[in-house]
Amino acid sequence: MGNKFLRALDLKFPIIQAPMAGGVTTPELVSEVSNQGALGMIGAGYLKPDQLRMQINQVKTLTNANFGVNLFVPEHFEINEGQVEKSKQLIDHYELLLNHKMEAADLPTKEIEKKTYEELLKIVIEERVAVCSFTFGIPSKKTIDTLKQNRIMTIGTATTVPEAIAVEQAGMDAVVVQGIEAGGHRGNFLVDSPNSMIGLMALIPQVADQVSIPVISAGGIMDGRGLSAALCLGADAVQMGTAFLTCKESGAHPVHRQAVLQAKSEDIVSTKAFSGKEARGIENRFMKEMRPHENKLPPYPVQNALTQKIRKAAAQQNNADFMSLWSGQSPTLAREETVEQVVRRVVDEANLILNNKAIKTW
Amino acid sequence: MGNKFLRALDLKFPIIQAPMAGGVTTPELVSEVSNQGALGMIGAGYLKPDQLRMQINQVKTLTNANFGVNLFVPEHFEINEGQVEKSKQLIDHYELLLNHKMEAADLPTKEIEKKTYEELLKIVIEERVAVCSFTFGIPSKKTIDTLKQNRIMTIGTATTVPEAIAVEQAGMDAVVVQGIEAGGHRGNFLVDSPNSMIGLMALIPQVADQVSIPVISAGGIMDGRGLSAALCLGADAVQMGTAFLTCKESGAHPVHRQAVLQAKSEDIVSTKAFSGKEARGIENRFMKEMRPHENKLPPYPVQNALTQKIRKAAAQQNNADFMSLWSGQSPTLAREETVEQVVRRVVDEANLILNNKAIKTW
Repeated sequence: MGNKFLRALDLKFPIIQAPMAGGVTTPELVSEVSNQGALGMIGAGYLKPDQLRMQINQVKTLTNANFGVNLFVPEHFEINEGQVEKSKQLIDHYELLLNHKMEAADLPTKEIEKKTYEELLKIVIEERVAVCSFTFGIPSKKTIDTLKQNRIMTIGTATTVPEAIAVEQAGMDAVVVQGIEAGGHRGNFLVDSPNSMIGLMALIPQVADQVSIPVISAGGIMDGRGLSAALCLGADAVQMGTAFLTCKESGAHPVHRQAVLQAKSEDIVSTKAFSGKEARGIENRFMKEMRPHENKLPPYPVQNALTQKIRKAAAQQNNADFMSLWSGQSPTLAREETVEQVVRRVVDEANLILNNKAIKTW
Repeated sequence: MGNKFLRALDLKFPIIQAPMAGGVTTPELVSEVSNQGALGMIGAGYLKPDQLRMQINQVKTLTNANFGVNLFVPEHFEINEGQVEKSKQLIDHYELLLNHKMEAADLPTKEIEKKTYEELLKIVIEERVAVCSFTFGIPSKKTIDTLKQNRIMTIGTATTVPEAIAVEQAGMDAVVVQGIEAGGHRGNFLVDSPNSMIGLMALIPQVADQVSIPVISAGGIMDGRGLSAALCLGADAVQMGTAFLTCKESGAHPVHRQAVLQAKSEDIVSTKAFSGKEARGIENRFMKEMRPHENKLPPYPVQNALTQKIRKAAAQQNNADFMSLWSGQSPTLAREETVEQVVRRVVDEANLILNNKAIKTW
């Protein structure tokens, strides 16, 4: 069967590089993924507008192929002084431990969050980026219409069937379906945890039965076994994060990269400690010690701003105990390769499997 | 590639019917699965020895094909009076609500648990059942050796890579790998939740890389998409529970069956409230109200014995609020069919997919 999603973006392979925020998706990574026939994505969730403009232009100098940008849809949040004070006390303790006193980041305001988001959107449109994907919710009808008028493909993120249906009903062109296997932040926006913690083996076929837009399977997919399995389940493409995080072209902190290469699948858990929102990564001291306090912390993005200084100090000191070491549930499948090696290996292996040459049937 | 597991058991298809305990696996269900070329399994975890003997004999009158029995490995547990009192108070409240006063079940003792297990094992050996699978741990070396001497295939259950390795190292012949998608009790025995809550997309390839015995993928698999995906990931076979639970031949309570047929994937969560051990099912009033108390309850099998009377009363009253409605994460894929229809549909669909006739490649 033909793959409409591939044709629409002129891709050779049904592989999207996940838009990992926080410096992982360097222009080198994004452009090389696109040059290899997959779709590179800039994780712009934490970028300032001028940073995004610069990165888009750098990618453009490195590839003529299509690539995309991912934005975080600003959410409603309240600042509760009690929660902030509780969180600050906990963080002060770690700052002392790290022996590194830094200025606290300004607390986010809804107005600034919204203004930044709108400036980022404007840049995506002005720069005529091929794809704009969204996490943490659904953009407004006006935003979706404007992107469509500018022939920019829109992709939403869902963790459950109702969220995938909402993405389609909003008029978006495709949906990333994030299983429990996925590293980094959970994209749930209608269904809370634990009801939104669903494995891809169950989630993809149930979503595929309910939506007609292309379904992109995300979470724990690292090789041709995962790619072929996702297509069998009904996906049109896969989104891979951790598999690209350890690539030579990625901007992941060396400590993060090494931690993923050494982690076991049972080391990976979800935490709200770093940002106030559930996110999956390698369990470390900060995650363990903060677990009893998780439900007393401020929501995203407030907690994210509050923990910034210790994450930054820990990164400077190469201290894995207090960094957010995001990873999907398949770290033992991660390799130190180039993007070209990853894409070729995944595609070649999936080809073998789908030609019935590498699986045990009956 | 050939499938050693199929040949060893003379199966036509790499499908095992999950050994659901509590009356679901009637002799009609088990025998019909085996007659269709898959492997029927008696869930004997809660059976008394004479019940198991009778069920085995009934299955034998209905099929000449191989079938199996699943046993729960007795675990170490302590009875803490404070926990038992707390649990009894909570349960008394529900008994009043159900307006149905029953005798409490005797609290389990380690001696009785062990004695029953040994009697069940003896019957499996005497009756020369083809397969004996185990959940909640690894049987003793002596047990495994005795089963092997009697040419009974042994299968362990794992939820993580270290558990699968432990199953292989114990000398067992195959391993059921249970993803987060799986309904009913979690089989973790070395790694606690949440570290053992791993999706099959991540878990199967990582296990397949570490063990050489056949890997049986369990959790959320309901159709040919799931079967083909599991084989792509590196599994030798699948184990399907919920897909057989709603079959005409199953002994599931009508309320349970209807609840599964009407449930959505986001209704399915894990709870310790019914048995003291994590188990996945449709979220109902008992699970929601007991959630805040979960960590103060007695362990399995103590809590299981304590809740027995309200589960029984609720079943008699057709009251879904207080029954354990176990289900995997794919309830929307459940159908009311015969076993023959399920097996044929799953196999035909997987054949189409694996012949590249029903998936979107590139």
